[in-house]
Amino acid sequence: MESELIAHLRRRLPAHPLLRVGPGDDAAVLAMGDVDECVVTVDLLTDGVDFELRKTDPRRVGRKLLAANLSDLAAMAAEPLAGVVALALPRDGGLELAVALYEGMLPLAEDYNLAVAGGDTNSWDGPLAASVTLIGKVTEHGPLRRDGARPEDRILVTGAFGGSILGRHLDFEPRVRETLLLNEKYELRAGIDVSDGLSIDLAHIVEESNCGAVLETANIPIHDDARRLAEQRADGSSPLDHALGDGEDFELILAVPPKEAERIIADQPLDIPLTDVGRFTTEPGLWQIDDHGARTKLVPRGWEHRFD
Amino acid sequence: MESELIAHLRRRLPAHPLLRVGPGDDAAVLAMGDVDECVVTVDLLTDGVDFELRKTDPRRVGRKLLAANLSDLAAMAAEPLAGVVALALPRDGGLELAVALYEGMLPLAEDYNLAVAGGDTNSWDGPLAASVTLIGKVTEHGPLRRDGARPEDRILVTGAFGGSILGRHLDFEPRVRETLLLNEKYELRAGIDVSDGLSIDLAHIVEESNCGAVLETANIPIHDDARRLAEQRADGSSPLDHALGDGEDFELILAVPPKEAERIIADQPLDIPLTDVGRFTTEPGLWQIDDHGARTKLVPRGWEHRFD
Repeated sequence: MESELIAHLRRRLPAHPLLRVGPGDDAAVLAMGDVDECVVTVDLLTDGVDFELRKTDPRRVGRKLLAANLSDLAAMAAEPLAGVVALALPRDGGLELAVALYEGMLPLAEDYNLAVAGGDTNSWDGPLAASVTLIGKVTEHGPLRRDGARPEDRILVTGAFGGSILGRHLDFEPRVRETLLLNEKYELRAGIDVSDGLSIDLAHIVEESNCGAVLETANIPIHDDARRLAEQRADGSSPLDHALGDGEDFELILAVPPKEAERIIADQPLDIPLTDVGRFTTEPGLWQIDDHGARTKLVPRGWEHRFD
Repeated sequence: MESELIAHLRRRLPAHPLLRVGPGDDAAVLAMGDVDECVVTVDLLTDGVDFELRKTDPRRVGRKLLAANLSDLAAMAAEPLAGVVALALPRDGGLELAVALYEGMLPLAEDYNLAVAGGDTNSWDGPLAASVTLIGKVTEHGPLRRDGARPEDRILVTGAFGGSILGRHLDFEPRVRETLLLNEKYELRAGIDVSDGLSIDLAHIVEESNCGAVLETANIPIHDDARRLAEQRADGSSPLDHALGDGEDFELILAVPPKEAERIIADQPLDIPLTDVGRFTTEPGLWQIDDHGARTKLVPRGWEHRFD
C-alpha cells in the first residue's frame, strides 16, 4: 500500500539541511537562500528500454535512475541539491520493488550530498516506469551549455567509450565532481554527457554551437568492454564503432580553447584520464580522420527514442 | 522521433523571464534570484488509472497532468515558477500524442505564468505514463503545511465535493490563486488539496497535526455531480458518501483559527464558496455529526494506490 511505503520512506530518508519540509506533505520545501541560478533536469527510465527488471537487481536499477540524472547535472557543471522520485509500480511486488529502488538510490544520493525530498508513488497494470527530477545549483563559474563551442576549440573527453551494455550502463559513476573541478579551474566553452552515443552527442554540441567537428579516431579511448562486445557479437562492428555509437558511457565531451586544452591534458587533474580526440571546425558537420590521415564524413549514431 | 518532438517543442514552448536556458540542453537553467524557499512536487499519471486515453482527448489528459501538480502547489500556498515534463510514450502515435499533451498543458501554464522548461521524452512498449515536476516559490507568508492544525480550529473547504469522475477530474481549476490570496490575507494554520477524497485527505491533516476532527455532515457542500452519480449508480452510496470519498475534487481543506474562520466566511473573498464544515479536536480520530446531532466514527475513505 502507498501509505506503508510513505511511512517507510519517512523513516528511511535522511534529514538534509536543505530540506525544510520533507516527504509527507503535498510538496517538499527547500532552502534556496544563496542559489542565484538553478538547474532542473528530469529523466524517465522504463523497464525493457533502460533496464530489464527480470534480469537485474532493482537496487542497480534505482542507482542507474539517479546516476543518469546526476550525469545531466554534471553535463551542466551544476552542484546537486535535491531530487524527487516518481514511480509507476506494477501492483504485484510493488512495495518491495519500491524499497529496493530507493535503497539503490540512497548511497549515491549521500555520496553527492543530494537531498531526497520525496515524490509520488503509483501502481498500475503496466511495467515499472520511474522518473527522477533533480535540482542543482549553478556555481559562480556558470553553467556549461551545449552551444558555446567555437571553431578550433579542442574536443576533450573523460574516460573511455563503448560496450556499456555489458554492465557499465548500470554501474557508472556520474562525472559530477570532475566537471565541477574542471569548470572551476579551467575555461570550458561547452559540454555534454554521453548518454546516447559519443558521435550523436558530439553532433548535439555541433548543432547547438553552429559549427562542425573532426574526430581523430586513433585517439578515441576505446573501453575494454567495446573490444569484448565486438568479439562476442562478431557482427562486423569494430570496437571503434561501439565506442562511437553505443551510448550510456556517461562520460563527458568538452569544448576547450586550444591552449587551455593543452594545459588540461598536461595537468591531468582528474582521477580518470582526459583525452584530446579532435577539434571543432567552422565547416559544419561531423568528420573523422583515421590514423592514415584519411578524412571521411562521420554519420552520427547512437540511441534515439523512436515513435511516430 | 524524439528529435522531431524536441525541435517542435523548441519552437512551441514560449520564452519566459525565469528561463535562462530552456529546452534543448542537458538541463534547464532557472533564475532564482529572490527565491528564498522553493517548493518541489512531482506527480506521475498513468493510462488506465488517472485517465483512459482511448476515451479521452489527450489535450484534456495533458491539462489534468499539469493541473494536478498545480493543485499541489496550491496546497502549499506556493506561486508556480517552472515545470519539467517526462513522458513514456507508446511507439505508435507517440509523436501526435506528445504534441497534444503539451497543447493541453500550455494554456494552463500560461494562465499561471509557469515556465515550461522542457523534459524528457521516451518511447516504449507500455501505455502512456507521464510525470510533471513543478517548482514553486514560497511567499513571505510561508508555506501551508499539513501539520499546523490545532484543536478548535475550524475546517474550511472551497467549492463542492463528489462525483468528479463524471468529468470534473479532468477539467478542474487548481486553487492556486485562491490559496495565495487566503494565505496573504488571513491566518491559515494548515491545508491540503483533495486529491484522494475529502475524508481521507482530512485524515492526513489530522495525522500530521496530532489531533482529531469532527465533520458536520449537513454542512458539507455536495456537488451536483455527486447527486447525479448516486442516481446513476444506484448502488446504495448516497451523494454524501460520494462527497466524502470520491476524490479528485482538487478543492482545498484548510485549518483556520475560529475567529479568523468567521471572518473568512463573512468576507467570502473568493469567486467560489468557502464553507465551514466542522472543527479540529484534541481527541484523535475522525468523527461525523449528522443534522440530528448524532456523533459517529467516520472511517476515512478515498483513493489509495494498492501494491504489495
